Amino acid sequence: MKVAVAGATGAVGIEFLRILEERKFPVDALRLLASSRSAGKKLAFRGEEFPVEDLSAFDPRGTELALFSAGSAAAKEHAPRFARAGAVVVDNSSAFRMDPEVPLVVPEINPEDARRHQGIVANPNCTTILFLMAVFPLHREAGIRRAIVSTYQAVSGKGARAMEELDLQIRAAIEGKPLVSSVFPHPIAGNVIPQVDSFDEEGTSIEERKLSRETAKILGANAFAVAGTCVRVPVPRAHSESVALEFEREIDPERARRLLSSFPGVRVVDDPSRSVYPM
Amino acid sequence: MKVAVAGATGAVGIEFLRILEERKFPVDALRLLASSRSAGKKLAFRGEEFPVEDLSAFDPRGTELALFSAGSAAAKEHAPRFARAGAVVVDNSSAFRMDPEVPLVVPEINPEDARRHQGIVANPNCTTILFLMAVFPLHREAGIRRAIVSTYQAVSGKGARAMEELDLQIRAAIEGKPLVSSVFPHPIAGNVIPQVDSFDEEGTSIEERKLSRETAKILGANAFAVAGTCVRVPVPRAHSESVALEFEREIDPERARRLLSSFPGVRVVDDPSRSVYPM
Repeated sequence: MKVAVAGATGAVGIEFLRILEERKFPVDALRLLASSRSAGKKLAFRGEEFPVEDLSAFDPRGTELALFSAGSAAAKEHAPRFARAGAVVVDNSSAFRMDPEVPLVVPEINPEDARRHQGIVANPNCTTILFLMAVFPLHREAGIRRAIVSTYQAVSGKGARAMEELDLQIRAAIEGKPLVSSVFPHPIAGNVIPQVDSFDEEGTSIEERKLSRETAKILGANAFAVAGTCVRVPVPRAHSESVALEFEREIDPERARRLLSSFPGVRVVDDPSRSVYPM
Repeated sequence: MKVAVAGATGAVGIEFLRILEERKFPVDALRLLASSRSAGKKLAFRGEEFPVEDLSAFDPRGTELALFSAGSAAAKEHAPRFARAGAVVVDNSSAFRMDPEVPLVVPEINPEDARRHQGIVANPNCTTILFLMAVFPLHREAGIRRAIVSTYQAVSGKGARAMEELDLQIRAAIEGKPLVSSVFPHPIAGNVIPQVDSFDEEGTSIEERKLSRETAKILGANAFAVAGTCVRVPVPRAHSESVALEFEREIDPERARRLLSSFPGVRVVDDPSRSVYPM
């Protein structure tokens, strides 16, 4: 397959490459794309070096699969060019998620929606994916009526610069120097910040809206109400969520564990008496 | 007033002294007590140095008010001695909280319960106090039916040694050295740990049980159901909580803000569009 990766030099772009390699994805040709600033850099894939090319100047003809994590603005500008040229674009940004023409897909949950794509398939927000992967097997069984979610989100969700900001702040704190914030609105080292993205007039953050709106789109007629409180914590990588679910029908913990254990992509980590739990 | 502080050298003991000073509490005589290990140390109060004495060997006669934060075991052993000698003990540990003879008091919420003491008054768990202070004014108005709480608890809740452990782990991480955990069951630096205290057979932690049981005792006939998920975060001091409330009667956000603003001890920090919120 002829694959292009847009946003290849970002935190997610590098994960794209790592996972393509790990999964032995059938890549016959690979093109790495990023902003003109990053063009000319080189990145390794399967032991070979690949040049990073300018996304704006790139001719998409011949591309079969384009993995985009280049931000919303770049996705809006360039993903349609790739789609028109015959590629299937999988976009990691929020640009097309709520577009009724674009399927919003978690492969383990609604893979059938991907079939009705018109060249672009959107990937949900990270918080939504984690949440749905853990609750969908239970929803299918006992019918979730509503969910209340509080998140513990790592700085990695905001990209490589945010991870660097946490690291620099921790070093500054140890040296007794002032903490400088440019990515986050406040120092994140030694702090929790109940703001992920900006707020609307109701005081709900965009991240919190994504959680409920994307859940509604992915589950369609089977959707349920979700109220989220999204909080950034001083953790480098990996989001956690505390989720309270109200069910239509009874379901006991043992049955819930069995359903979760057998769902692809979910691992149950749950032996609290031995201090075994998700971290 | 003749005051004794038990557990004076601990993280809470030092706060007792700071607050007695800050509030110009009428202290005529002060005795500082701790384990025999700490006896002989000196602590400052109002610019004077006071010796730390051995709690086990201390004769409580003449003490009018004893502020205890010496842990459950020491409280169980020594608080009754002080009470029998005529002192009023305010105990910060969990030793007497669920004892039906001992009032469990948040002064802003159920001060009248303190009047029926028999020498010991218990102070609730920190997580419970924070929670009730923020929801009681709303409960009085609109009747809470149930509450779902997720916490973001600082390491200070586990005492001075836990604060030191976080600090040492952060330094070790920066130097690429292994993180050593002795206070917490896992490294807390760069992590979130969904365990505060140990778990019962149902997988509920003691901290989570305290939240619901203490709420039930403090509110008595007016109590409501509370489900908590208690999580430790790598923050040195100050706990945060994400709380979802279901009410019996309607209450709009503007009314809720007004009720909270006028409640003693509560400050509303809520202007999300300008990135102003509790942290």
